[in-house]
Amino acid sequence: MPNAVVLLSGGADSATTLAIARSQGFAVSALSFAYGQRHRSELVAAKRVASRVGVVEHVVVEINLRVFGGSALTDEIAVPKNRSLDEMNAAIPLTYVPARNTIFLSYSLALAEVRQASDIFIGVNALDYSGYPDCRPEYIAAFQAMARLATARSVDGVHTVNIHAPLIDKSKADIIRTGTELGVDFGSTISCYEATAEGLACGCCDACILRRQGFELNELPDPTCYVESEMVCK
Amino acid sequence: MPNAVVLLSGGADSATTLAIARSQGFAVSALSFAYGQRHRSELVAAKRVASRVGVVEHVVVEINLRVFGGSALTDEIAVPKNRSLDEMNAAIPLTYVPARNTIFLSYSLALAEVRQASDIFIGVNALDYSGYPDCRPEYIAAFQAMARLATARSVDGVHTVNIHAPLIDKSKADIIRTGTELGVDFGSTISCYEATAEGLACGCCDACILRRQGFELNELPDPTCYVESEMVCK
Repeated sequence: MPNAVVLLSGGADSATTLAIARSQGFAVSALSFAYGQRHRSELVAAKRVASRVGVVEHVVVEINLRVFGGSALTDEIAVPKNRSLDEMNAAIPLTYVPARNTIFLSYSLALAEVRQASDIFIGVNALDYSGYPDCRPEYIAAFQAMARLATARSVDGVHTVNIHAPLIDKSKADIIRTGTELGVDFGSTISCYEATAEGLACGCCDACILRRQGFELNELPDPTCYVESEMVCK
Repeated sequence: MPNAVVLLSGGADSATTLAIARSQGFAVSALSFAYGQRHRSELVAAKRVASRVGVVEHVVVEINLRVFGGSALTDEIAVPKNRSLDEMNAAIPLTYVPARNTIFLSYSLALAEVRQASDIFIGVNALDYSGYPDCRPEYIAAFQAMARLATARSVDGVHTVNIHAPLIDKSKADIIRTGTELGVDFGSTISCYEATAEGLACGCCDACILRRQGFELNELPDPTCYVESEMVCK
């Protein structure tokens, strides 16, 4: 089996991406980050997802993006709640973390080189969240072009680097359907930006709203554990 | 004064790059990394250089590249000694750290976004060290192309990202001459891959050999403090 590195946050998207990589026959090194995010319970979810799907290793790298701040996920900025899809798409969300995907992909490139992997999977998607610049196809293509020039392994004339973003043009409903078909246990995943330490979702941040709609549109039961079943938000 | 981020390792090249950025009128956020390298005394040098040249801030980010290994600088691999220039250029050196410059530049992109800087300086140079893939002009150009698509600030239609690598086509002799003209105190810098905790240079790793030749070709006194004045190496 060829090796691949899969970026695994513990949310629905990255869990589906991991399942896709496994279904394509890759032996996977899963890579997660403790980056000073508010929702650290996603790392617990990542560990659970990795062990259920089956990976060769699960590497968790401690990095501190709080040193820079500038995001609702890493700084003292409130996470937006109860927004409509139009509001979500009107501007780049406060939950955007400066250069986060670039930093994550750069680490995955290092791990791929050391593990002699040519393939990197990332679960970004451009449709539901058009506001994140580093979730767009042109960004991923540009990262791949740079990555192919960046490492000793990729400039040897034999190997290369392929950045796979299999969800990039999928809606959240498509992702939930694809993941379900591949046997993803979405009850193990956490998408919420403000999940509690026990892994309970708030139900009203952008990530919760998009995810819930994904289950509804597929007429699938939502296995998410919410703080309050009535979805009453502050 | 416009803001710029300068990657500062504490060696001769990055000190010269910092001096160039200052001479061009930038207010500088210097960025260094404690990345599990063997030669941590370079961070002491970086602090010294930053305070002498004058920067707005000096951010040191702790990252752990040892989790990946794969380099003589981060793993239990011996640093090569007493090599000729031909030997240095025959293959990518063992001191190459997988994806290091990509990771460093990614962090600088995050800091630049948060500090509202459009300019990033990195002291890579391609001539003395043709073996590092991530020190080549085509790599820097590809990173810039990716960076311009990566951040909220750079996709606003107003701002952009410029990656400056002012030493990229300079020989080490050119760099020492340029730095000397700009008043760089090279005695404050440490280039050695195995500098002691006190900052003494070994004198015989690739970095020491190239640096020493840079002073010799300029007929300048070498201010480096070596472990042994006779340059006797193991």
